[in-house]
Amino acid sequence: MTAPLAGYVILDLTHVLAGPFCTMTLADMGAQVIKVETPKGGDDTRAFPPFKDGKSAYFAAINHGKKSIALNLKADEDRLIFERLLARADVIVENFRPGVMERLGYGWEDLHAAFPRLVYGAVSGFGHTGPDARRPAYDMVVQARGGVMSITGEKDRDPVRVGASIGDIVAGMFLSQGILAALLDRDRSGLGRKIDVAMLDSQLAILEHAVALTTVTGKAPGPSGARHPSITPFETFHASDGLFVIAAGNDRLFEKLCIALDLPISDDPRFATNPARCDNARLLKRLIEAVTLENTRAYWISRLTAAGIPTGPIQDVGQVLKDPQILARNMVVDVLDKNGRQAYKAAGNPIKMTDAPDPKSRAPAPDLDGNRGEILRWLEQG
Amino acid sequence: MTAPLAGYVILDLTHVLAGPFCTMTLADMGAQVIKVETPKGGDDTRAFPPFKDGKSAYFAAINHGKKSIALNLKADEDRLIFERLLARADVIVENFRPGVMERLGYGWEDLHAAFPRLVYGAVSGFGHTGPDARRPAYDMVVQARGGVMSITGEKDRDPVRVGASIGDIVAGMFLSQGILAALLDRDRSGLGRKIDVAMLDSQLAILEHAVALTTVTGKAPGPSGARHPSITPFETFHASDGLFVIAAGNDRLFEKLCIALDLPISDDPRFATNPARCDNARLLKRLIEAVTLENTRAYWISRLTAAGIPTGPIQDVGQVLKDPQILARNMVVDVLDKNGRQAYKAAGNPIKMTDAPDPKSRAPAPDLDGNRGEILRWLEQG
Repeated sequence: MTAPLAGYVILDLTHVLAGPFCTMTLADMGAQVIKVETPKGGDDTRAFPPFKDGKSAYFAAINHGKKSIALNLKADEDRLIFERLLARADVIVENFRPGVMERLGYGWEDLHAAFPRLVYGAVSGFGHTGPDARRPAYDMVVQARGGVMSITGEKDRDPVRVGASIGDIVAGMFLSQGILAALLDRDRSGLGRKIDVAMLDSQLAILEHAVALTTVTGKAPGPSGARHPSITPFETFHASDGLFVIAAGNDRLFEKLCIALDLPISDDPRFATNPARCDNARLLKRLIEAVTLENTRAYWISRLTAAGIPTGPIQDVGQVLKDPQILARNMVVDVLDKNGRQAYKAAGNPIKMTDAPDPKSRAPAPDLDGNRGEILRWLEQG
Repeated sequence: MTAPLAGYVILDLTHVLAGPFCTMTLADMGAQVIKVETPKGGDDTRAFPPFKDGKSAYFAAINHGKKSIALNLKADEDRLIFERLLARADVIVENFRPGVMERLGYGWEDLHAAFPRLVYGAVSGFGHTGPDARRPAYDMVVQARGGVMSITGEKDRDPVRVGASIGDIVAGMFLSQGILAALLDRDRSGLGRKIDVAMLDSQLAILEHAVALTTVTGKAPGPSGARHPSITPFETFHASDGLFVIAAGNDRLFEKLCIALDLPISDDPRFATNPARCDNARLLKRLIEAVTLENTRAYWISRLTAAGIPTGPIQDVGQVLKDPQILARNMVVDVLDKNGRQAYKAAGNPIKMTDAPDPKSRAPAPDLDGNRGEILRWLEQG
């Protein structure tokens, strides 16, 4: 068993979410991540709720297994330590506002000249180029400006935010891909590269269907509630005890669905094809619910699953964390405290890989500057 | 200029979205992607609306720049071609239901024995292990079961689907990361690995804040409309001509906001700290809107931006595609037709990298089996 990124050293100057999420995925694949934090308080999320035993569970959830050293990058002594770390690192990652690293004397040009093998990953709200490069951004600003809010929510009501922070997280994931591709390339060329990922760009990059629709029809789609905008039936339905999902993505699945519901309408011209079903979606929903309201969600999910139809419950996060499939996949892990006791639960690593460890627990999230001695000794060993 | 993945060959057996999105990101970084499609119709999305000149813009948006060969993997002659392709490939990617590759004789065990350097990437609804491994899934099934729907939508109303297909796309992105990490590892070990990504697992992996909240408080969060669940003010506000976003993520930004709005309340104990602002969020929203309703969105976005406060418009997809920052970042590219004319618009590559090409156009999406001759000649050249 060897983690695929064992031996790679990531110098992590990031804070809050997009950057720390990126380096968490690298740590989960075996990279050694060293957080370089400001001596005054460190990563902002150390002060974010919820807390447990006085420490942020939020910080722990995305910083477990990393090490921490606090350095003042404006003080000569600390800059010396930082530069010795740079000499040993494969990758540096930062999510400052553009220009901050340059002002410190650690911009890409300077670093590339001094450490040609170093890969430089940056994630920011709007990227390092363009008219708005220096504007501040948070998740919600890019969810709103990037279009995803305009297609999320109920028809004829105000748009809503995606409950998960996909403005940050998707950008962190693209940065992780870029870093890994640059490392592959470096193994041939001997030279690092700079990767510049913008949260706003990343939002556009995941809109796929909406981009195709807008550019071909000239009309931007609006929100479509709990249904797919162009496949029917592909939405939530009421059972006797609440909502569940049916996703019959093609004619064959629709026929199977009609049989499983004992609803003989698959030859009806109003429902025989997906375009016809989309035109008559409201009528079809009522016909299906007239059947599904007669029994429970569990009954229908079991019956439709047996018939091979994609279906399932709408689960809250508490239910997800107890889902047998999620547990069987080791997707809920323990984050330990310094005494080796389970302190928090966190999401596991979704990248399952042969011959790679997939442990049931994670090393603690570091205290601020908590690994200084260990890191300095490691530097001594050269 | 060299693309970081130039020279890598990806054999792509995927269809619809999660798999093709994964291989698109690899193609955008320079890998050569060969789609191996079923002779009967090929990738389902070739038949998905919207169409332009009789071809699917949806298919083009995620398959541009790939090549296509149609092979019947149950016919001896085509299996022979497939195996010659396997011998030349660095990676195979598939998103069949678990078991399909084994029945064809191309499961991981068989492939790893015959082609030890080959990396095998799989993405499926529920993964290749666990009690529900063989159940079918679509995007909406995992959005619902995986928890993101439960935190998306308006309070006290039914949950809604995230308008972008993040059930598929996020899984495709995790697979892309796993593939790149496995390639890095292979360059040292000489051995490929199998990566098994589940769409359901991937949904849990992006919930972060909601997982921490649920496990610490014991209570699962519900939807919170257009606001952040634990930061205030971080939501939409009405101006005289519609909604816009203000995201004042800390006390310093809130003070700046109060000054910019000429609203002297930052010392008021009801609003002086983020916990207090969260407790008095409705009152605070009214006080802010009493000011913002007096002028337009454009006015406030300009004024607040000048004051350094994260803010922005809620844009529909048509507006996003014309956003000056998006255009300056080359995030809207032309997909060409076979005559080199601009046929569609698509999202660009969000992974900007030094010394890597970032072209303004993309080669056409392939016709089904459209590159057979070229691919067979390439195999001959061994």
